[in-house]
Amino acid sequence: MRSLLCCTLLLVATACSPPVESLPSAGEATIAPDLLPHRQTIERLLREGLERGRAHELLTDLCTTAPHRLAGSPGSEAALEWGRSTLEELGLSGVHLEPCEVPVWVRGEVEELVVTAPAELAGMPLPVLALGNSVATPPEGLEAELVVVEDFEELAALGAEARDKAVLFARPFDPSLMDTFAAYSGAVNQRSRGASEAAKAGARFALVRSLTGRTDDHPHTGNMNYAEGVRRIPAAAVSTRACDLLRERVEAGDEVRMRLRLDCSREADGPSANVIGEYLGRELPDEVVIVSGHLDSWDVGQGAHDDGAGCIHAIEAVRLLKALDLRPRRTIRVVLYMNEENGTAGARDYAADHLEEFPRHVLAIESDRGGFVPRGFGFDGGEAGLRYVQELGLLLEEVGASRVRAGFSGVDISPLKAFGVPLVGLNVDTQRYFDHHHSARDTVEHVHPRELQLGAIAVAGLAYLAAEREEPCPRTPTR
Amino acid sequence: MRSLLCCTLLLVATACSPPVESLPSAGEATIAPDLLPHRQTIERLLREGLERGRAHELLTDLCTTAPHRLAGSPGSEAALEWGRSTLEELGLSGVHLEPCEVPVWVRGEVEELVVTAPAELAGMPLPVLALGNSVATPPEGLEAELVVVEDFEELAALGAEARDKAVLFARPFDPSLMDTFAAYSGAVNQRSRGASEAAKAGARFALVRSLTGRTDDHPHTGNMNYAEGVRRIPAAAVSTRACDLLRERVEAGDEVRMRLRLDCSREADGPSANVIGEYLGRELPDEVVIVSGHLDSWDVGQGAHDDGAGCIHAIEAVRLLKALDLRPRRTIRVVLYMNEENGTAGARDYAADHLEEFPRHVLAIESDRGGFVPRGFGFDGGEAGLRYVQELGLLLEEVGASRVRAGFSGVDISPLKAFGVPLVGLNVDTQRYFDHHHSARDTVEHVHPRELQLGAIAVAGLAYLAAEREEPCPRTPTR
Repeated sequence: MRSLLCCTLLLVATACSPPVESLPSAGEATIAPDLLPHRQTIERLLREGLERGRAHELLTDLCTTAPHRLAGSPGSEAALEWGRSTLEELGLSGVHLEPCEVPVWVRGEVEELVVTAPAELAGMPLPVLALGNSVATPPEGLEAELVVVEDFEELAALGAEARDKAVLFARPFDPSLMDTFAAYSGAVNQRSRGASEAAKAGARFALVRSLTGRTDDHPHTGNMNYAEGVRRIPAAAVSTRACDLLRERVEAGDEVRMRLRLDCSREADGPSANVIGEYLGRELPDEVVIVSGHLDSWDVGQGAHDDGAGCIHAIEAVRLLKALDLRPRRTIRVVLYMNEENGTAGARDYAADHLEEFPRHVLAIESDRGGFVPRGFGFDGGEAGLRYVQELGLLLEEVGASRVRAGFSGVDISPLKAFGVPLVGLNVDTQRYFDHHHSARDTVEHVHPRELQLGAIAVAGLAYLAAEREEPCPRTPTR
Repeated sequence: MRSLLCCTLLLVATACSPPVESLPSAGEATIAPDLLPHRQTIERLLREGLERGRAHELLTDLCTTAPHRLAGSPGSEAALEWGRSTLEELGLSGVHLEPCEVPVWVRGEVEELVVTAPAELAGMPLPVLALGNSVATPPEGLEAELVVVEDFEELAALGAEARDKAVLFARPFDPSLMDTFAAYSGAVNQRSRGASEAAKAGARFALVRSLTGRTDDHPHTGNMNYAEGVRRIPAAAVSTRACDLLRERVEAGDEVRMRLRLDCSREADGPSANVIGEYLGRELPDEVVIVSGHLDSWDVGQGAHDDGAGCIHAIEAVRLLKALDLRPRRTIRVVLYMNEENGTAGARDYAADHLEEFPRHVLAIESDRGGFVPRGFGFDGGEAGLRYVQELGLLLEEVGASRVRAGFSGVDISPLKAFGVPLVGLNVDTQRYFDHHHSARDTVEHVHPRELQLGAIAVAGLAYLAAEREEPCPRTPTR
């Protein structure tokens, strides 16, 4: 009845006025009738979160207790303990660690990149970070002349010229892209595959322009993988300013030579875990909405935005719901994944260990884009699921998080798609994310308390609505 | 024809699906037919702005050339020269300064707030800034016992207890408000009127909790006015952390005493100016769209967000349009107002000097909320004007600036409302603004280059559309 009335009103508006008049104002006409009563719930969440939110306090606690959380490291062990005790203090049910086996990579003590020619630059150290999974150099280092390329095609065109050289992959972020994650996607293969491509061309080592849109002196690390059957050469990221300097000299015709020294190493795989706890549903406790982030981080900085913020979004979302006694129909499960950065072991093991539950996983939400103001959600699933989540999103207009679009959700939850679970990623404003990502600058003082808190409120709102609405989110068609 | 087609499509969609299906996607169905061809223009502006934008470079130039720009100060003189030469270098027409007479207030050399009791705190200096327009203390300072109140009612209730005291107005920002400007509005009367209210109660001097949502050690200044016929007592802002400390001690029953020393002074009014330049319209050069900010700033920090950012938004908007050879039908006039912070002489004089042009001022845009990511625009005018600007806003969806709501526009353009000119203020994300506002922390390194640039693109887009669209914005009804 109400639905019909809405349609009629829209028809009248459309017929009488120019098209723009039918713009929704997030008012009654566009919110599904069964969701209308929940508008007040979202208002309460927003108020409670802004007034008495604990997101930044929790993030500070995580970042100071366990600042370097690369899987298998002592920091990751401290983070697991932090996760367990934090979820327990929150009063969640069934808090436990779910073991997984993770690759262990250690940065070591020596990390040095020095110019050896031309003479006027010789001895100049440049800001550098080994890439995760890189092999070490010999103790005395590797020395080579620099060649600069923008992509693998340009490298291939060099042919034998790249032999015994140091290859610098210098393709910058495309600044014209509004979404900095798109710029990152357009540059990341230099980091993930550059070393093996350079090795195929006969290079001694590979350098990569740090994956950030800023021009500064902060190197950004990140994972790389060696191709099967290709010689493993060391690989490191240089700061964007260093990259620009080197490129300029090479393009001016100078013979630029560098020495790289790294003593990083890949150790034997080790034990780690995902951290899990539940806010049990009041009517359908077996039906589950996942809220998640990944607990591991890189071994520089504090992993504050990546992905301390995502973990806190998940934890604070449930804390807020409990504080307001908003216990939904279905269970909300907090999952803090391990090893997103360099292996996704936690994500794989969760998918393997919970198979029989997936028909009752009604939605999985991940936050892994930093602690910035929320803008909405990316949805990865079917058309009907998208419309359903868009309906929920309309209630988050005042939180600034109403824009729900088809798109990527999150690395850790993505294995669940094959089992029909609809996936959602929190989208935040992305302009500052790659200033910090994977660098020593990813620290809690660069996370704004209110921006972080608003993300938690957005996750709380969406998770609550998905866990409470009578009709669950339509599942994702599977082949 | 096209219009009819759009309506038909909407009707079909509405009739066949639940209400949520008629959500606009900023696609063809909701954009007015005559505006459709301009979507590409906005895309070009976005790309050009992000790729080759100069907003942050221009802001750095302003903030280092003229960091302290309080009206009538040497910094404001430097800023006027900077404004004139910048608009001239941009190739604008008729660049000139329009004189206005401004109040001149000087902070002086002495600014000191020291606890004198209880004994264990005696001698502790607290972070303090005189409020703009405050009178000085005697050279030896003023000493008094502290009373703490949240508002004028509480002060009145103190009665004779406030006599010879120092009154600390300690009402904090309401953190539950999503819009930090609303929180500011709820607290600002302590700063603007607190001194006279305290004087009426017999106080020796007034202190105000800094107007920020953060708890930190940075005092925030700002203007205050003395009521007619009331004794003028000195007034200063203390940092939020100092305020919390003092309040705590007083509430614990301690007799807290303070000594304040200020040697600020109000000088004779002096000459200053607005800076004006035009990008002449190709068909209707007498019809004008204003893009504006205010060139003056407080005398601490660099006035980077307040309101260097707004000036740069206006300047960079026109620079972008010129760079793309997008010369609209009507003139776009850049106005850099003087004296917004402590008198609005520039705004008043512009309104007085351009009276006969106002029937052909088709829209006035001001940016004065900082260099953060744009969210949309506040519109101050009639209903038809609001709908018109909402139509334009739809084209700014990809810039993130499509949300146009009735609301406040800007202090400097507001006198034009009485003459029927529709007013628009750029709305940006407000979460971080009051971390910096009126404090030594309002410096260019706290302005993110891309966030600033996006604001300029939003202003460029809206100004272009308003100056180009055949039908001008419906005027504001006047009585």
